Amino acid sequence: MPVISLPDREWIDHVGPMGGVEMVPWDLSGEPPRPDELSFVVAPHLGPPAMQHLGQLPGLRVVQLLTAGYDNVIPALPPGVQLANASGVHDASTAELAVTLTLSSLRGIPEFVAAQGRSQWLTTDYRRSLADRKVLILGYGGIGVAIARRLSGFETTLTAVASRARAGDGLVARVHGVDELPSLLPEHDVVIVIVPLSEATTGLVGRDFLAAMPDGALLVNVSRGKVVDTQALLEATSAGRIMAALDVTDPEPLPADHPLWRTPGVLISPHVGGATSAFVPRAVALLREQIAAFAGERPLRNVVHAG
Amino acid sequence: MPVISLPDREWIDHVGPMGGVEMVPWDLSGEPPRPDELSFVVAPHLGPPAMQHLGQLPGLRVVQLLTAGYDNVIPALPPGVQLANASGVHDASTAELAVTLTLSSLRGIPEFVAAQGRSQWLTTDYRRSLADRKVLILGYGGIGVAIARRLSGFETTLTAVASRARAGDGLVARVHGVDELPSLLPEHDVVIVIVPLSEATTGLVGRDFLAAMPDGALLVNVSRGKVVDTQALLEATSAGRIMAALDVTDPEPLPADHPLWRTPGVLISPHVGGATSAFVPRAVALLREQIAAFAGERPLRNVVHAG
Repeated sequence: MPVISLPDREWIDHVGPMGGVEMVPWDLSGEPPRPDELSFVVAPHLGPPAMQHLGQLPGLRVVQLLTAGYDNVIPALPPGVQLANASGVHDASTAELAVTLTLSSLRGIPEFVAAQGRSQWLTTDYRRSLADRKVLILGYGGIGVAIARRLSGFETTLTAVASRARAGDGLVARVHGVDELPSLLPEHDVVIVIVPLSEATTGLVGRDFLAAMPDGALLVNVSRGKVVDTQALLEATSAGRIMAALDVTDPEPLPADHPLWRTPGVLISPHVGGATSAFVPRAVALLREQIAAFAGERPLRNVVHAG
Repeated sequence: MPVISLPDREWIDHVGPMGGVEMVPWDLSGEPPRPDELSFVVAPHLGPPAMQHLGQLPGLRVVQLLTAGYDNVIPALPPGVQLANASGVHDASTAELAVTLTLSSLRGIPEFVAAQGRSQWLTTDYRRSLADRKVLILGYGGIGVAIARRLSGFETTLTAVASRARAGDGLVARVHGVDELPSLLPEHDVVIVIVPLSEATTGLVGRDFLAAMPDGALLVNVSRGKVVDTQALLEATSAGRIMAALDVTDPEPLPADHPLWRTPGVLISPHVGGATSAFVPRAVALLREQIAAFAGERPLRNVVHAG
């Protein structure tokens, strides 16, 4: 019977009993339990996983992460060990935050919260609704699709952009290529950024990108801080020309003396895209699926390194 | 050719040319233009419409409002004149705000805005997501349905409650009757209130209602302030037992010394449900439809008084 480690007793309780496997707690930092029998290891979801003991496990075949990121893990992985990530587990939570930031900015929640702090009932002008807005989702992987699904009931026009053009799905007629951005940006009121950070996307939202957005447009970033050129964003927002709602920043955390904190029209949340109650049930569903596949000798999902 | 008045030149421009009718500006407050010919009058959308000149219009057949409310208009209406309201015109905007308030409260936007005011990057615990929440929509007319449509992409469980039980639609399996609330409330994490104000709904959300909501639940009110018993809400929220997000209050506006302003877990927006860019295009669509029906001698929509 395969022996599988989960980060702690709580995770074993979350996953619940499964036939055909034995589960033991191990967070990878101390000596491994049952080193001769462990064949499937689930790494903890906070911080980079400790890798130094994995070489002591002769029967190890799979390391399952609870994060989507994995770049720093592969070099430390013993040969012949498969690595699977937790892509998809954070989609619901991050997509939800993207919509939360969009709606909060458009409908004036930051102004109302500030007025509430002064016990002041604001008399306000008409705000822009999300209804009738043209929304561009930049990055159309799992989270981008989850954003589109959430926006589908809001009477918006949705445009999806990915690295390469391709056919659409039930939510968008087609997916545009990133090369079409210069002609697309001027037509959109809201741009939601959810591309992976790479060489190609570092600083993608820079001076030219922001200049192509129309006056009063809203930029929402739920990807990585370095996708946006902070200095260019500061210039565009300080002039009051565009608004921004950011769950990620560069630098991050944003230092107390950074001018972005105090720029009107900028809403900042402290990188909380994935940090919700949605994580555990979706992680558990993935773990049960992966463990069942492993026990049944079927292929795993989310394999990012074949070993 | 029927002569139709709109509140001002801007509304005439918004509606645009229509064959078979002539449009003139009139806000009802001064002497009517073309009193012998006016047959269809559109009242301004701000404030109660001036009714004192309508008796001077021998050919008047229809008064079209740009608001949903009409209670104070009927008594002043000349005999034989039909009254139509603008029910539906505010659905998109109000439903959108209900979702905005729900998401903002659950995902902690008020805390992040306050921290931003102190230039502080919060380290936060996991918040509850809207995903996996059980949401009860109390009031399932046009706005209730528009809320359900917006929530349908968020991986929630939706329950609709109206004055009487009836069959469901594509969004909910069935509509529950208000008599089922005592058994439904303990099972729901979020309650969104969008019932019309009436004798039956005044104070509906009182001590018993709030006590039936589970610990940590969120009450969202986008209907009328008096549907909620403010004193009972203060007690439930001051104890930290439930959260609230309110676009309407009793009293309204909320005076500066009211304790609700400073109760943790309470988010207040200043009655801005309908006040967005979504209003004019939807009002224009209704007016064009109504004017075309009138010119074609077909029945109008939204007739609330047959005349």
